[in-house]
Amino acid sequence: MDTTSAFNKFRETEKEIHAYNHALGLIYYDSVTSAPKGAADGIAETMGALSSRLYELTTGKTTSEIVSYLLENDGGLTFEQKKELKEFNRDNEYMSSIPQDEYVEYQKLVSKSEGVWEKAKKENDFPSFAPYLEKLAEYNRRFAEYYKPGEKPYDVLLDMYERGLSTEKADKFFGELKDSIVPLIKRISSAEAPDDSFMSQTFPVSRQRELSARLMKIMSIDENRCGIGESEHPFTTEFNKNDVRLTTHYYEGAFADSMFSVIHEGGHALYELNGCDEYENTSLAGGVSMGIHESQSRLFENIIGRSREFCESLMPVLKELFPGQMSGVSAEELYRAVNKAVPSLIRINADELTYPLHIIVRYELEKALIGGELEVSKLPEAWNEKYKEYLGVEVPDDARGVLQDSHWGGGMFGYFPSYALGSAYGAQIVNTMKKELPFKELILRGDLRPIVGWLTTHIYRFGKLYDPEELIEKCCGEKFSAKYYIDYLTNKFKELYSL
Amino acid sequence: MDTTSAFNKFRETEKEIHAYNHALGLIYYDSVTSAPKGAADGIAETMGALSSRLYELTTGKTTSEIVSYLLENDGGLTFEQKKELKEFNRDNEYMSSIPQDEYVEYQKLVSKSEGVWEKAKKENDFPSFAPYLEKLAEYNRRFAEYYKPGEKPYDVLLDMYERGLSTEKADKFFGELKDSIVPLIKRISSAEAPDDSFMSQTFPVSRQRELSARLMKIMSIDENRCGIGESEHPFTTEFNKNDVRLTTHYYEGAFADSMFSVIHEGGHALYELNGCDEYENTSLAGGVSMGIHESQSRLFENIIGRSREFCESLMPVLKELFPGQMSGVSAEELYRAVNKAVPSLIRINADELTYPLHIIVRYELEKALIGGELEVSKLPEAWNEKYKEYLGVEVPDDARGVLQDSHWGGGMFGYFPSYALGSAYGAQIVNTMKKELPFKELILRGDLRPIVGWLTTHIYRFGKLYDPEELIEKCCGEKFSAKYYIDYLTNKFKELYSL
Repeated sequence: MDTTSAFNKFRETEKEIHAYNHALGLIYYDSVTSAPKGAADGIAETMGALSSRLYELTTGKTTSEIVSYLLENDGGLTFEQKKELKEFNRDNEYMSSIPQDEYVEYQKLVSKSEGVWEKAKKENDFPSFAPYLEKLAEYNRRFAEYYKPGEKPYDVLLDMYERGLSTEKADKFFGELKDSIVPLIKRISSAEAPDDSFMSQTFPVSRQRELSARLMKIMSIDENRCGIGESEHPFTTEFNKNDVRLTTHYYEGAFADSMFSVIHEGGHALYELNGCDEYENTSLAGGVSMGIHESQSRLFENIIGRSREFCESLMPVLKELFPGQMSGVSAEELYRAVNKAVPSLIRINADELTYPLHIIVRYELEKALIGGELEVSKLPEAWNEKYKEYLGVEVPDDARGVLQDSHWGGGMFGYFPSYALGSAYGAQIVNTMKKELPFKELILRGDLRPIVGWLTTHIYRFGKLYDPEELIEKCCGEKFSAKYYIDYLTNKFKELYSL
Repeated sequence: MDTTSAFNKFRETEKEIHAYNHALGLIYYDSVTSAPKGAADGIAETMGALSSRLYELTTGKTTSEIVSYLLENDGGLTFEQKKELKEFNRDNEYMSSIPQDEYVEYQKLVSKSEGVWEKAKKENDFPSFAPYLEKLAEYNRRFAEYYKPGEKPYDVLLDMYERGLSTEKADKFFGELKDSIVPLIKRISSAEAPDDSFMSQTFPVSRQRELSARLMKIMSIDENRCGIGESEHPFTTEFNKNDVRLTTHYYEGAFADSMFSVIHEGGHALYELNGCDEYENTSLAGGVSMGIHESQSRLFENIIGRSREFCESLMPVLKELFPGQMSGVSAEELYRAVNKAVPSLIRINADELTYPLHIIVRYELEKALIGGELEVSKLPEAWNEKYKEYLGVEVPDDARGVLQDSHWGGGMFGYFPSYALGSAYGAQIVNTMKKELPFKELILRGDLRPIVGWLTTHIYRFGKLYDPEELIEKCCGEKFSAKYYIDYLTNKFKELYSL
């Protein structure tokens, strides 16, 4: 074996693994967009068979030998090839650190817990979910210790979702955010709220579908490479850079839900559609992290989609598609309506300003939970206290409280922070972009291509080559800072609410 | 190894193979219903990787050893288990008989030829397709000889698509059909044609979608186990008996196209949805042959869907969904319109009566082609002559003539006869059913459940346990005969055209 032939073998394995990920991704996509309900068992069986082969391909003896050889003989490898190898090795090392029987037990627990959580939420019955949550937290704590002994388990988990992130950094970030946003929200609560009643008229779904197509065009999303489907919860998935799918959900009485879903998912899609050709089928393809991915979706949804300029440039389209409903509504009224800031109970329905507080609540609680400072039985109480303190709302029941999100029931601890971090990355990226592009003018003109072009040059094309922090520094010429996000929110909402 | 443990191993292999077929089937389904156009290359790559693993699983050493062992030690196996083994072994024996390099070369040729055919059809350029067609025919002839040396190649091919079928049987069947239908069509050509102009009004697609849902309900197709999608060419596919998908295509100006597509594909779907639970994931699951499958789709589309009773029971639904368009149209007028018999150029648009003649033309030509009695260069001329002779129409160009179907370009010779055979099976099955069920009354009542129940008992539940001929004999108490089909067509169209 020499380095070149070993690397070629490694590439072949990556390609085969990619095929399995494609198939598995598509089976999942189909299951939430098209599959009949009764298909669930058959889908689980097939996913099981393919996953098991995928596990073999990824962690099997042949692959491990090649990867080990390359890691020890990386003299002839380029910077990109080394990073590719490292990326590939990341998940493997994690998986290999866990005894196989525990890993299998945990997978079974997760698949059972998701159902238990769903039922508990429906029946507002936290106690039935609590023992599962306890075990899930315990497994995550233990696995983190197996993987990186000696490190704080929650730090290990944070780093898995957003490489480079730590409790220290997150504490600082969320601390600054809380200090500036909580007082702002308190002031807004006593200000006059804009009238958004026109948004809850009936908007025919067929017209909303047409709006989605128009939005994709405005965002310069190539319909030859990106499909649009419908699912209960909107999401984006990619099989390769020429095959990206985003989904939305249409409600007749809430057209803005789908509109912002399409813009949000469109941001994710653009990231995947504009990756580097040469990274295709390798471990460098695709977005680098949850946080950077959310930076793109939130940048498009909020900084662009909820801007005055976007509302203005979109208004003629809305009046064309919904002449009756939008009659007499001005762009300024649309702008104010889509930015109405109201502290509320449910994260996924929250406005741009109050959203990060929902994340902060979760961050503080899961940190304490994994850190062993908070018992599962005390979680609902702690949740309700924080909602009262940060958002000023009373949580009426656990269904609309601690049980609302699926993440913890799916075994995901350390995932939430990347949502807020993404918004902050986005604000910093736009701050840099504005020095080089007439950002607002382009939005007003309805021409987002130069913006997508800029993001391709500075973010998209790098795939997983740089870790999030490196990427932000490379893109913005300075280290990550929450300042731009805080300034953006403060300026926007002070102006909106005349504070 | 003992028989029991070997059979269990065999079952595990079948199950794993089934998972790959599920994934591959879904990737294909997605590619024609949802995937963006640019996804084609990535889809081909992934299908290649999964197919290659599927080939390994199916023909690999471990599997072959187990199958050989079981074939030699089948004493302890039940009748069903023996048949299961035989079914599994069918494709393997065929594939193993062909030298691997020739098999690979042929696969490449097919995948290239499909593109060449498509282009040739678009550009009405038969000569550009001719050399490919020659090679395809040559390969099919040779492979048939490898597989079953000493047998007539076209017989071998017929048997592959419809086990038990031979040139001798097909000649007899098509001869009888031609003798009775050709004169009937000639008489109809000079009779007065019904007015079907109301069918080409504008029927909104959203209402047509609603009609599809209603038709599925009428046919008692379980929406929990059967999804409906949209694709250029309607088709049905199944991943298991709880996950069947049918597709249709909506044209605003031709609502009956989609209506009959849904009923036709619904017939295929019912066959798959009502198989035997115990055959799931084994080689006995699914429809036994193309011909029996078509018997079900054509039975529902034509014998039921184009019956006077169905038109009557459906009329209130149509008037509800399309009040303006169907105003003043009677059930009898609908019945006559959907049974308008006109000799035409294009098989897939042909009516029930003239349809089999399109098949006869193809049967006679491909038999001569594979038999070496007809040169590819003479094919267009021979095609045009037969259309003139049997259907009385002049073929204006090869695009609407010999190039219209994709089958030959895809290397499928021997496939066409099963379409006509299916119609004949269907007529014979219904003839038997009528002795036990008030067939027409049930249709008139709009209650097809007893019909589906009867078909489940006599056809669906057997999966691949019996070969087509056995199945027909078991179901009808006598051997297959074209008589019922010919009688059905003759009586129906004589009455319709007052002959």
